[in-house]
Amino acid sequence: MAKKAVVLLSGGLDSATVLAVAGSEGYGVYALSFDYGQRHKFELVAARALAVRAGVQSHVVLDINLRIFGGSALTDQIEVPRDRSAREMARGIPITYVPARNTVFLSYALAWAETLGSFDIFIGVNAIDYSGYPDCRPKYIAAFERMANLATRAGVEGKGKMKIHAPLLARRKSDIIKLGLSLGVDYGMTFSCYDPTPRRISCGRCDACRLRLEAFRACGVPDPLAYARDRE
Amino acid sequence: MAKKAVVLLSGGLDSATVLAVAGSEGYGVYALSFDYGQRHKFELVAARALAVRAGVQSHVVLDINLRIFGGSALTDQIEVPRDRSAREMARGIPITYVPARNTVFLSYALAWAETLGSFDIFIGVNAIDYSGYPDCRPKYIAAFERMANLATRAGVEGKGKMKIHAPLLARRKSDIIKLGLSLGVDYGMTFSCYDPTPRRISCGRCDACRLRLEAFRACGVPDPLAYARDRE
Repeated sequence: MAKKAVVLLSGGLDSATVLAVAGSEGYGVYALSFDYGQRHKFELVAARALAVRAGVQSHVVLDINLRIFGGSALTDQIEVPRDRSAREMARGIPITYVPARNTVFLSYALAWAETLGSFDIFIGVNAIDYSGYPDCRPKYIAAFERMANLATRAGVEGKGKMKIHAPLLARRKSDIIKLGLSLGVDYGMTFSCYDPTPRRISCGRCDACRLRLEAFRACGVPDPLAYARDRE
Repeated sequence: MAKKAVVLLSGGLDSATVLAVAGSEGYGVYALSFDYGQRHKFELVAARALAVRAGVQSHVVLDINLRIFGGSALTDQIEVPRDRSAREMARGIPITYVPARNTVFLSYALAWAETLGSFDIFIGVNAIDYSGYPDCRPKYIAAFERMANLATRAGVEGKGKMKIHAPLLARRKSDIIKLGLSLGVDYGMTFSCYDPTPRRISCGRCDACRLRLEAFRACGVPDPLAYARDRE
């Protein structure tokens, strides 16, 4: 039987690519998504479709209530910033940061991995997506991995070592797209927008849309998604 | 205004003591409990009563589904071990271990702390309760704290340092009881049993009951709880 891996799958461009990477490395994939009160819940529809297409062993969508704590434009009725330049995005931690989100996500992935007897967790954080999020930094991922090995049976019984795979960490967004295309990812099935229209069209103006559009432009490939700004 | 602290409150003897410690240190307390599919869900009733009595600022009970991953006698239909000696308990990781439970709990506490602007999280792990759980070891707590400081705004913006307080870590269970009594904890309001009767009487035979009874005996104080074995 193939080695098992837990893959965090948001339904966005990055996690869709990571899903393909894990599959290409021969892992039996257990995909994990979260309904955490995000405004852009439509990404979960994308996640379901991506998981089916990738032929995962299992896909679990966990309903977790991060909204109860508040504090982010992604879960609260705070306005999502628009039309920010790359320089503006790089300045400080954006309001779209959800407190401790990746820590909560990785903790659940760890719980599932331990139950499955898996030692491999994949997450699609990267240096550009980072755009100020503390929990997307390489040293954060390394610290989580270290903690994970102390937290679990694996670490105590010495049967294996938990590894947090972050294959996109050092890649530019355009390189991520090239990688995904080479692995057959259909980016028309992914969804990135933080602030879609009621009809679930990407806004084209939030940080996530702007980074995505810029990356497709940089690698000379059209983004298969439709954008609301196209029609303005 | 008082400094804020997030206190993980299970409703057991240890967390009730930690709740009192945090209060005695002058923190405004935000208590956090979890409904994680535990068989001994009655502990949440104890947690609610304890939080009210302690006059906390807020008490949140989060419904999180760890059962979906399975793998523990505390959440599955696996039999809880009974009548084990201290030596047997000390051997290996018990079947009552819930994969990555403390990591998931602490991650939520971290999310709440960050939203509140708090840098202090209290957890009632201790060296005896440990009884083989990897995520109750001092080096695990230290690794979580390190990760937490890299995960959050606090670590990036340098406004403060997240601290994981584990004031019971080095205490024997009987010392914990003495500490709690000195702080006015009513242990009749706490609940420890992993496998209570349908009428919510503690079994007196699971590891948690045995450790508790032994500790009360060691400090020469009667345990105010009733036990099913008393009537056998």
